[in-house]
Amino acid sequence: MQVVVALFDCFTALDAVGPYEVLSRLPGASVVFAATTAGPVRTDTGSLAIVADAALSKVTSCDVLVVPGGPGTRAAVIDKALVDWVAATHAKTAWTTSVCTGSEILGAAGLLNGLEATTHWSRVAALESYGATYSERRVVQQGKIVTAAGVSAGIDMALTLAGLIAGIERAKAIQVGIEYDPQPPFDAGSVTKAGPEIVDLVLARATSR
Amino acid sequence: MQVVVALFDCFTALDAVGPYEVLSRLPGASVVFAATTAGPVRTDTGSLAIVADAALSKVTSCDVLVVPGGPGTRAAVIDKALVDWVAATHAKTAWTTSVCTGSEILGAAGLLNGLEATTHWSRVAALESYGATYSERRVVQQGKIVTAAGVSAGIDMALTLAGLIAGIERAKAIQVGIEYDPQPPFDAGSVTKAGPEIVDLVLARATSR
Repeated sequence: MQVVVALFDCFTALDAVGPYEVLSRLPGASVVFAATTAGPVRTDTGSLAIVADAALSKVTSCDVLVVPGGPGTRAAVIDKALVDWVAATHAKTAWTTSVCTGSEILGAAGLLNGLEATTHWSRVAALESYGATYSERRVVQQGKIVTAAGVSAGIDMALTLAGLIAGIERAKAIQVGIEYDPQPPFDAGSVTKAGPEIVDLVLARATSR
Repeated sequence: MQVVVALFDCFTALDAVGPYEVLSRLPGASVVFAATTAGPVRTDTGSLAIVADAALSKVTSCDVLVVPGGPGTRAAVIDKALVDWVAATHAKTAWTTSVCTGSEILGAAGLLNGLEATTHWSRVAALESYGATYSERRVVQQGKIVTAAGVSAGIDMALTLAGLIAGIERAKAIQVGIEYDPQPPFDAGSVTKAGPEIVDLVLARATSR
C-alpha cells in the first residue's frame, strides 16, 4: 500500500508527521514524501526541513494521498502544477486525505464541491470558497475523501483511516504502539473550550507572522 | 529562548515533531534540529528524513533540550559523543526533556539516577537499568528534567512545559492554535486500555522489525 505525503514550502510539520506516524505502521505500507522538486522542504517556522524523497512528477499513483496544511497553503492553492497533480492523483487513489488547511488544496483541485469538509478553525471561509460546507467534526469522511481539522487532528484522522483500511484491531495496535492516550494539561483545544480571549491571542500572533 | 532537538539515526519522527510544533510557537523561541553530523537524518521507518541543520559540536548551549526516542536509541545510548554532549549540554539547560525511549539517552548520560521518569511502555526495564524508577504518569517532571511516555506523549509534555515557561494563557493559545482537542476513534492508547491481545500484536510487530 503506497502512501504519499505531498509537501510544499511553508507547510506545518505536525500536519504531515502525525498521519505518517500512524499510516507507516500499517502492514505493507510504504510511505513517500514528495514535493514539486525533490529535496528538503522548509516548514512554516523556517527552523525545520523535511526531505521530499521524490518529485511529484515521479509519483503517478498512490493508494493514500495525504495533503498537509499550513501558511504555505495560500501559495499552494495557486500552484497549478501541484493542484493539477492532486486532481490527477486523486482520480486513482483509494483514499484522499487532508489535514488542517490542506483541505483548501483539495478544494482548489475541485474535489470538495458540494461536500462537507473541515479545516483549521481560523480558515472556514477559505474552505467554503471552494464549494465545501464546513463541518465542526474533527474528522470528516465523504466517500473516499477524509479531511481533518487543525494540525494535531491528523493523528485522529489517520487512526480512523487505519481502522477502515486494516480493521479496528490493527488500528488499536497502532494507537497503543504510539501510546496515543492523550492527556493535554489544559482543556483548550477548540475555539469553544479556549474561549474568546485565548482565541484572540492566537489570531494576533498569526497576523504578526 | 533556544530549543535544541537532538536527532540520531532511526529516531521516531513524532517524538521530535510533536514537541517542536508546540515549543516553536512560544514567544521568542528559536528551534534548531541537531545531530552528530549536520544533514538529513533517517527515521525508524526509513521513509522519512528530517534535516539536522546543525552539528551537535556547534551547539554549545540551549535553554530547552528535547531528546526523542525510537529504535535508534539502542545504538544512541552507546554513542559516546552523543551521550557526552547530552550530559554537557544538560549542565547549562533550563529544561532537559525526553520523549519515549529518549529517556534512555538521558539515563546513559547519568541524568536519571534516583529519579522518577517515563518511557515507552515496552521499555521499562531498559529505563530502570539507569537507576531511574518508572512512573506510569504520561509526563514526569523531576526538577528541570521532564520525561514523556511513548511517541505522542511529547505533545502533552511540551504543552506542560509551555505552561511552565510562558504561562497557562500562552500554553492554551498554542493548544488551540494546533487544535489539540484529541478525539481518538478508539480507546486503546495505553496497555491497560488496549488489553493483552492488542499489546501482543504490537510486540510481535516490534520484534519482526
